[in-house]
Amino acid sequence: MKNVVVTKVERTPLELVDALGAQGVATVHEAQGRSGLLKPYIRPIYAGARAAGTAITVWTHPGDNWMIHVAVEQMKEGDILVVGVSSENTDGMFGDLLATSVRAHGGRGLVIEAGCRDVGPLREMDFPVWSRAVSAQGTVKATLGAVNVPIICAGVLIHPGDAVIGDDDGVVVVPRARAATVAEAAAKRTAKEDATRRQLAAGKLGLDLYDMRAKLEKAGLSYVDTFEPD
Amino acid sequence: MKNVVVTKVERTPLELVDALGAQGVATVHEAQGRSGLLKPYIRPIYAGARAAGTAITVWTHPGDNWMIHVAVEQMKEGDILVVGVSSENTDGMFGDLLATSVRAHGGRGLVIEAGCRDVGPLREMDFPVWSRAVSAQGTVKATLGAVNVPIICAGVLIHPGDAVIGDDDGVVVVPRARAATVAEAAAKRTAKEDATRRQLAAGKLGLDLYDMRAKLEKAGLSYVDTFEPD
Amino acid sequence: MKNVVVTKVERTPLELVDALGAQGVATVHEAQGRSGLLKPYIRPIYAGARAAGTAITVWTHPGDNWMIHVAVEQMKEGDILVVGVSSENTDGMFGDLLATSVRAHGGRGLVIEAGCRDVGPLREMDFPVWSRAVSAQGTVKATLGAVNVPIICAGVLIHPGDAVIGDDDGVVVVPRARAATVAEAAAKRTAKEDATRRQLAAGKLGLDLYDMRAKLEKAGLSYVDTFEPD
Amino acid sequence: MKNVVVTKVERTPLELVDALGAQGVATVHEAQGRSGLLKPYIRPIYAGARAAGTAITVWTHPGDNWMIHVAVEQMKEGDILVVGVSSENTDGMFGDLLATSVRAHGGRGLVIEAGCRDVGPLREMDFPVWSRAVSAQGTVKATLGAVNVPIICAGVLIHPGDAVIGDDDGVVVVPRARAATVAEAAAKRTAKEDATRRQLAAGKLGLDLYDMRAKLEKAGLSYVDTFEPD
Amino acid sequence: MKNVVVTKVERTPLELVDALGAQGVATVHEAQGRSGLLKPYIRPIYAGARAAGTAITVWTHPGDNWMIHVAVEQMKEGDILVVGVSSENTDGMFGDLLATSVRAHGGRGLVIEAGCRDVGPLREMDFPVWSRAVSAQGTVKATLGAVNVPIICAGVLIHPGDAVIGDDDGVVVVPRARAATVAEAAAKRTAKEDATRRQLAAGKLGLDLYDMRAKLEKAGLSYVDTFEPD
Amino acid sequence: MKNVVVTKVERTPLELVDALGAQGVATVHEAQGRSGLLKPYIRPIYAGARAAGTAITVWTHPGDNWMIHVAVEQMKEGDILVVGVSSENTDGMFGDLLATSVRAHGGRGLVIEAGCRDVGPLREMDFPVWSRAVSAQGTVKATLGAVNVPIICAGVLIHPGDAVIGDDDGVVVVPRARAATVAEAAAKRTAKEDATRRQLAAGKLGLDLYDMRAKLEKAGLSYVDTFEPD
Repeated sequence: MKNVVVTKVERTPLELVDALGAQGVATVHEAQGRSGLLKPYIRPIYAGARAAGTAITVWTHPGDNWMIHVAVEQMKEGDILVVGVSSENTDGMFGDLLATSVRAHGGRGLVIEAGCRDVGPLREMDFPVWSRAVSAQGTVKATLGAVNVPIICAGVLIHPGDAVIGDDDGVVVVPRARAATVAEAAAKRTAKEDATRRQLAAGKLGLDLYDMRAKLEKAGLSYVDTFEPD
Repeated sequence: MKNVVVTKVERTPLELVDALGAQGVATVHEAQGRSGLLKPYIRPIYAGARAAGTAITVWTHPGDNWMIHVAVEQMKEGDILVVGVSSENTDGMFGDLLATSVRAHGGRGLVIEAGCRDVGPLREMDFPVWSRAVSAQGTVKATLGAVNVPIICAGVLIHPGDAVIGDDDGVVVVPRARAATVAEAAAKRTAKEDATRRQLAAGKLGLDLYDMRAKLEKAGLSYVDTFEPD
Repeated sequence: MKNVVVTKVERTPLELVDALGAQGVATVHEAQGRSGLLKPYIRPIYAGARAAGTAITVWTHPGDNWMIHVAVEQMKEGDILVVGVSSENTDGMFGDLLATSVRAHGGRGLVIEAGCRDVGPLREMDFPVWSRAVSAQGTVKATLGAVNVPIICAGVLIHPGDAVIGDDDGVVVVPRARAATVAEAAAKRTAKEDATRRQLAAGKLGLDLYDMRAKLEKAGLSYVDTFEPD
Repeated sequence: MKNVVVTKVERTPLELVDALGAQGVATVHEAQGRSGLLKPYIRPIYAGARAAGTAITVWTHPGDNWMIHVAVEQMKEGDILVVGVSSENTDGMFGDLLATSVRAHGGRGLVIEAGCRDVGPLREMDFPVWSRAVSAQGTVKATLGAVNVPIICAGVLIHPGDAVIGDDDGVVVVPRARAATVAEAAAKRTAKEDATRRQLAAGKLGLDLYDMRAKLEKAGLSYVDTFEPD
Repeated sequence: MKNVVVTKVERTPLELVDALGAQGVATVHEAQGRSGLLKPYIRPIYAGARAAGTAITVWTHPGDNWMIHVAVEQMKEGDILVVGVSSENTDGMFGDLLATSVRAHGGRGLVIEAGCRDVGPLREMDFPVWSRAVSAQGTVKATLGAVNVPIICAGVLIHPGDAVIGDDDGVVVVPRARAATVAEAAAKRTAKEDATRRQLAAGKLGLDLYDMRAKLEKAGLSYVDTFEPD
Repeated sequence: MKNVVVTKVERTPLELVDALGAQGVATVHEAQGRSGLLKPYIRPIYAGARAAGTAITVWTHPGDNWMIHVAVEQMKEGDILVVGVSSENTDGMFGDLLATSVRAHGGRGLVIEAGCRDVGPLREMDFPVWSRAVSAQGTVKATLGAVNVPIICAGVLIHPGDAVIGDDDGVVVVPRARAATVAEAAAKRTAKEDATRRQLAAGKLGLDLYDMRAKLEKAGLSYVDTFEPD
């Protein structure tokens, strides 16, 4: 991969990003056709972490966080750092000093397919991070990578400027070109779910609400009083 | 496995279930001879989650939560959904809508050898879930499974109506026929542990309290001032 | 390994231990040249757990906690139990009764390359534990091990009396002979980081603060407007 | 679990076991309705390992192989040892001496949810083993378990006398009462697959052979010349 | 993701594919700037498996191999099936019947981020497969996916028609547009390595051959007679 | 850790090393009191790999094999490279060029807590390697480590000059000072096992040979005709 920093990034408008963030990861993932979800080993470093922003992408190598320092300069209000690594790694590439710097430049959080450290201070700062590990292991600054190139992070292709949404359920990415459509679909979905929730809370069964009984019968489900093994 | 829903379930009486729940997972596990504990990759989705109930069992396939919808209709006051899967899977088969429905039918929680989503809302509802993963990944409703048949979930054989106890330590299952005996043994164990705790807190050593010194000596343990490698 | 209990332990002075504890795991790890960090699968059993103490080391076998009971007698004010196992194991070797006893003898916490149980009560006691698993699975008392011999726990060689520091980031060990030097280096590092943090918070870039621009250019990093794949 | 050795075992007749073994794991698994397959982390210790026999079940504890020695006495011509463990363990509970003894009593192989050692000698003996790990780590003989009680091994409930089939694909278990039915179904399936194989080898498509085109169209699959992202 | 089958695929010319295959995975990975390598959990199902071909991509869901059947019709001489899954799965989506069909249509092998079965017969056919698991677990044909759309498989973005190379080291993908350049670079690299190998075999040190001594000294490496800990 | 190369290594005499190698990993592990065994995730890259030698130790960082090149210069007839890494890593730090160089300097193999590549060529060379992964992923030469300092590799403390034995069962390390004693004990053990093997092959039970019946009875084992659950 070329060792470049791409300085021009077309970002998803923040009002769309914020609209997506308000819906949460699960709803956004559904609203865009069940795509864009990072693998579930990417977890928030503290319960209740929540963020929505535009991706500044970083490509790094195991045990080396040089490019993260480079990337901070490219950040603007509303950005989230998204860091991919060329092979599996758990080192603590990011801590509270970098978080202080990211926040000073308008950054809203971090997604990293490696480790994070200073979890206590980060929680106190309420600086949200999603990582594959927590580790105090320090990293070097020796090998170039890239900033703001398309990367694959935790199984998802991410372009700079894409919308990134994180909460307790993990992280989902919405391509910039689809953000408006997805935000609208997500809002509709939430409205519909609110209505559904009221009916379910009143005791109505999903079997009836989603009209499943005929399909189940056709598929061959039978109801019996007692179980007989084959 | 036959695609059936068994509608008659003999449940462990709720007073026994509640008595077991009051003792906690570790004590119940000990009280029934160290059996019935689900593998430790089954973890609560939030700290402090706690539940005791009777099992409604569900057998599903990876990426498919159809049978969970079917199972809700079979739930009564005090039940807990226990979901096994035919192969390893982390998809988010369950979220806050299903939890709303489960609660409306008297359900107390979920144990699932797959993923769960909507962790934030579930924590706000204080709806306890034990799962092997958190993932927003959506599932289809395409393939039949079974409800209220004996299943294996996280290494334990579970029959519908068995008592299911969950807390920060994980999940333990007590067969219905043994619930009274185990509840009694657990209560005795707790009483004894309270007495032991007071002695330990006062500085008495386990070595003396449990009368270990002679056994250790017989087994060949020696006390030395300094360590000499072999 | 010989089945011995070594009764004389030269401990790191507690004022040094406490000085190290005040700096936190990540800083101490850096201050001693990035060594001594336990593997990141060792995690605190509750958020915010924090401890610093002197190691009482225990060597055990899978599913057997006999030696932990033996070790408690060797504890003094300020000690932390550090338990290694001869093969990978997740059983709950330690619970709230043992914690009560450890605390009664001045112990400050536990690090264990196996499982822990009674997580709820331990959190209520604020008794800090770092383990590789949470599991209620009970253990036997059948096979001898050793106490206060050098052990390897989660990839780190630990001698009795070494300083052990744990927080949200994991666990780091400082050899007794190096504790004074490391504590001094850690304090200096913290002071320097405080100054750095202020500059970063004010918007100064790490690129400038750490003087990276020339090195990056020399290594061949280029800045471009748009990304062209190779 | 009670510490017992059950001495009377009703075994699946060996002609049925051999008939099942001739069909292989995948076919037998299908023929009994896709049940009975051990989790895929159970792997043969050498390529080409193959066995079919009747289960002698063993329940053990981590790091302890005492019950395996007890179980050998219960073996007869055509048996396979199947060993479950009360918690996850990789220790080498079995090696070439035990294999020599098992073979002397008519045993045909081993399935173990723990480790195996002496892999080189076992391969030379062509003594087939399926395990979750290879490890030379030795074990103690200190804690009782049980022999010929129902156990769960790698996610499957196994009774003594059940048919156990292993090959490169893993291990499948057929309950004794179902062995005749499953053997017949497996033989039919193999015959049918032979016919199918000839047609496929001749270039006929599964789409046509299995009559999938209408179903795919109804489900909404479309064929296009070029891909357009959503 | 849209449920489509893309029928027009521009393939990497087979002479380029074969040239890449002749160089092997490690060399090709290096020759294209250390990109395109699938994660190392993708392993050949038998030692010595080897293939090079053009990608027919398949997007499936856990436990469902319907789209693989659809994909076979799209295969031509020299193709390799590359299967991605929407979430982690180990089910045996592919066996010897499908392999027979793939081979009848000119296919050369399979790469799948899930399980494979019939490993014995596949080895006898010398049909090469790289998978994340071996499992006999059967799959359903219920949910649509896509064929010949860009997919991410084991962390790499793959387009239909890309060159896919597999050997004992794993799998690497070369984008069609880069195949000629990479094949040339790989051949040069191999020639150079042959020369290097001769020098190394003659005892010349890499330190001298690669001119490392000055750099090591500048970086601060020192040579000492005996080790003194810090 | 200091960045040093220690040039003087006291090696275990090769006749002792070869005597240990002749006994195999499992026997040596037992003969030295069940210590020194590397964790079981260290596996041979091909079946039947076998080596015994003296350790040249290397400490590296993830994704960086610079120190391996440095270490080759320190090798002599009979040495084995043993490589530890500062954090978990699977990159292919070693391939057939390095193997050629190692062999040219008398080296007998490699043990590495990271990845290896060129598995096909290495198997053809019959150059034995034990690693935690196979991966073609290339590494940089940017960060110093150390050569011939004590390291921890896969959970075992290893000093330069220690005897290292590898076979299908994994890798065991014998400290230089203990090599003679352990070699003698291993030979005795093998002789005894040969006698035991003959008795077991003749049908004698381990229960009698090892005199277990009284101990089992005392521990409470009972023999019953049929199983009754608790």
